[in-house]
Amino acid sequence: MATHKLLLLPGDGIGPEVMGEVKRLIDWLNSAGIAKFETDSGLVGGSAYDAHKVSISEGDMAKALAADAIIFGAVGGPKWDAVPYEVRPEAGLLRLRKDLGLFANLRPAVCYPALADASSLKREAVEGLDIVIVRELTGGVYFGEPKTITDLGNGQKRAIDTQVYDTYEIERIARVAFDLAKKRKNKVTSMEKRNVMKSGVLWNEVVTQVHKREYPDVTLEHQLADSGGMMLVKWPKQFDVIVTDNLFGDMLSDIAAMLTGSLGMLPSASLGEVDVKSKKRKALYEPVHGSAPDIAGKGLANPIAMISSFGMALRYSFDMGDLADKVDAAIAAVLASGLRTADIKSEGTTAASTTQMGEAILKEL
Amino acid sequence: MATHKLLLLPGDGIGPEVMGEVKRLIDWLNSAGIAKFETDSGLVGGSAYDAHKVSISEGDMAKALAADAIIFGAVGGPKWDAVPYEVRPEAGLLRLRKDLGLFANLRPAVCYPALADASSLKREAVEGLDIVIVRELTGGVYFGEPKTITDLGNGQKRAIDTQVYDTYEIERIARVAFDLAKKRKNKVTSMEKRNVMKSGVLWNEVVTQVHKREYPDVTLEHQLADSGGMMLVKWPKQFDVIVTDNLFGDMLSDIAAMLTGSLGMLPSASLGEVDVKSKKRKALYEPVHGSAPDIAGKGLANPIAMISSFGMALRYSFDMGDLADKVDAAIAAVLASGLRTADIKSEGTTAASTTQMGEAILKEL
Ligand SMILES: CC(C)[C@H](C(=O)O)[C@@H](O)C(=O)O
Ligand SMILES: CC(C)[C@H](C(=O)O)[C@@H](O)C(=O)O
Repeated sequence: MATHKLLLLPGDGIGPEVMGEVKRLIDWLNSAGIAKFETDSGLVGGSAYDAHKVSISEGDMAKALAADAIIFGAVGGPKWDAVPYEVRPEAGLLRLRKDLGLFANLRPAVCYPALADASSLKREAVEGLDIVIVRELTGGVYFGEPKTITDLGNGQKRAIDTQVYDTYEIERIARVAFDLAKKRKNKVTSMEKRNVMKSGVLWNEVVTQVHKREYPDVTLEHQLADSGGMMLVKWPKQFDVIVTDNLFGDMLSDIAAMLTGSLGMLPSASLGEVDVKSKKRKALYEPVHGSAPDIAGKGLANPIAMISSFGMALRYSFDMGDLADKVDAAIAAVLASGLRTADIKSEGTTAASTTQMGEAILKEL
Repeated sequence: MATHKLLLLPGDGIGPEVMGEVKRLIDWLNSAGIAKFETDSGLVGGSAYDAHKVSISEGDMAKALAADAIIFGAVGGPKWDAVPYEVRPEAGLLRLRKDLGLFANLRPAVCYPALADASSLKREAVEGLDIVIVRELTGGVYFGEPKTITDLGNGQKRAIDTQVYDTYEIERIARVAFDLAKKRKNKVTSMEKRNVMKSGVLWNEVVTQVHKREYPDVTLEHQLADSGGMMLVKWPKQFDVIVTDNLFGDMLSDIAAMLTGSLGMLPSASLGEVDVKSKKRKALYEPVHGSAPDIAGKGLANPIAMISSFGMALRYSFDMGDLADKVDAAIAAVLASGLRTADIKSEGTTAASTTQMGEAILKEL
C-alpha cells in the first residue's frame, strides 16, 4: 500500500477543532489498515504570526511543497486586524495558492436535503441543488502588479490593484471546467464583465475558443457576472458548472454556498497542474467557511465541511473514490439520524458538539 | 414656476417602451400646470450605434451636459455583441457617468409587500426589506488605466484592467452614504476586500476616518465584500445603507435587487457633486433592470422601475418630494388593486400591458 504524505494546516479560530476530527478519521484509516497516511502539521495565518511574525514560515512552506496534499482549516480573525498587510493571516493562504500553483479552485454548492429548510431561499429553489463553481485561483486582481498605496501629498493617497489574465491561464481553468462538466450535466456557464473589463473580453474569447476546439459537445453559456449573480439567487438549479475568475469566483462561490443553507458543510479543492512525469498534482483542501472566531474553542463548530474536504482529497489526490463515497454516505447517514451541530440545529433534532459529530461520522464508517 | 430641462435617453430594448410611460406622466404634469418640464431626447447605446456608429453622439453628450437631469432607459442586447469594444452600447452609459461626474449611485432595494412572494427568498427574509446600496460610480476598475489587451506572440494575449481609488473619491462617496443613513436607520455598512486588495485597505481607512471626523453618531460596520454578499442573501434586513466600490456595487446591488422579487420595480439615481455656486448637481435616473431584448416591443415590459426613477428625479433634482411621494403612492395603489405586468403576474391578479400600467398609475395620480 502506497504511503501518502499529508500536511495538516489547521490555522486559526475553529480551524484546529475541525481539523481534530479529520485527524481522528486519518488515525482510524491508518490503524484499520485501510490507507497509509503520513501526517505532519504546521502553522498558518494568525497562529503563524503569533509564533514567528510571518503568515507562514519557510519551513512550513517547504513541507507544503513536499506534501502529496495539504488539508487546510481556516485563517484570520479580529485579533490580527492591525498586523502589517504583508503578514496578515490571509497572506499565508494566498502564498500557498500561488507558490504551489493551485490555479483551479473547485467549490461544490450542494444542498443537503436534510438542511434545505436552513436556507433563506424557498425549499423549491434549493432542494436538490448540485452545482460546482470553478474559480481561477492564482491570477487576476489577487496577484497582479502594481498593487500599491502611494502617498500623493495633500492628505491624498492612491490605491492601485491590477487585474491581469494571460491566455494560458484562462485556457487551463476552462479545461478544468469542461472536463468536470463532462462527468456531470455537461453544461458550463462562463461569467465575466466583458462589457466593462478587458480581462472579461479576453476571458470570453478564450473560453469560447477552448470550447470550439476541444469540447464542442459540452453546452457553453456566457453570462455577465452581475446578471449571473442575479440568476444564481433567482434559480440556482439552472446551472451545472460555473467557471469564473478569482474575484468574481470569490463572491459568487460564497453566495452560492450561502444559498444552500449548508455553509458549514461545504468543502473545496484547490488543484495545480498535473505534472507530466509523475502524473501528480499539488492540491490543497479546505472548507468553504471561515475561521469563525466568535465560536472558536467552544466545541460548537461543525466539522462536516472539513471532513468532507478530506473526502475530496481522497477522491482527487489519492484516487480513493470509493472511500470518499463512503465518507459522504456516512455524513448523510449521521444527518439523517438527526444529529446536528449548533449552526444547523432545528426543532426535533439532536444537538452535537464538534467532537460528537466527528465521532458519529467515524462510527458510521 | 421654474422650468426644468430634462433629457430623455430611452436607449435599447424595452427602454423606449417604458420611457413612453414617463413621457405620458411628464405631459400630464405640464398640462395640469403641476410642473414645467422642457424635454428633449437623444440616442444612446445600440440605437446610437445603429444611427451614428457611436454609443452616444457628441450632440447628445452636449445636451446631457446642459440638462438639469437625464432620464435613462437601458442599453445593450445581443444585436450589438460583435460591435467594437469602444462603441459597444454600454460605452455610452459609462461615458455619461464619467463625463458628468456621476460618482454616487443610489440603488434602493425595497420589497413591495404585494410582491414578496415573487422573491426566491422566504417571505420572512424579505418582507419589509428597505435598504440602499450606495455604489461609487466613476472610479475603480471601470475606468482605471491601463485597460488593455496586448498580443504577447505565441498565441498568447494579456488582458489588464486597473482598479484605482484616490482618497477624495472614497471620502465623497462615504459622505453620501452617511448623509443618507442619517435620514434613515442611521447605519452604514462599508464593504471591500481589504484582505486581498490595496484599494480595500485604503477604502476601509478612509471610510473609518470620515466616520470618526464627521459622522461619529452614525453606526458604521465593515464587512469583507464576499461575506457581505453572503449576509445579504442570508438576512438582508440587517442592513440599512451599504457603501461600496464600483465593481462590488455592481454585483451586490444586482443581487440585492433580485432578493426583493421586485426587479422590474426598482429605480436608481446617479448623482454628481453639488456645484458650490448654483447649488445644483448633475443627475441621471435609470431603472435597475436592463434592456430585456427578449421581450422588447411586445408591450410586456413593466414601466414601474422607470416611472419610479422619474420619481427619484422629482425628489433629488427638483426638490418635489411631495410629488414624488404621490407617485410612489400611486404605484402602491395600482399594485394593491391587483394590476400586474407579465413579470410580476401571479394567480388572482389582473394582467396589464406596459401602457395599461402607465395609464393606471397616471389615473391614480
Ligand atoms: C481568506 C481570503 C483571502 C479568501 C479569498 O478571498 O480568496 C477567502 O475569502 C476564500 O474565498 O478562500
Ligand atoms: C450596463 C453596465 C455597463 C452597467 C454596469 O456594469 O455598471 C450595469 O450593469 C449597471 O449596473 O448599471
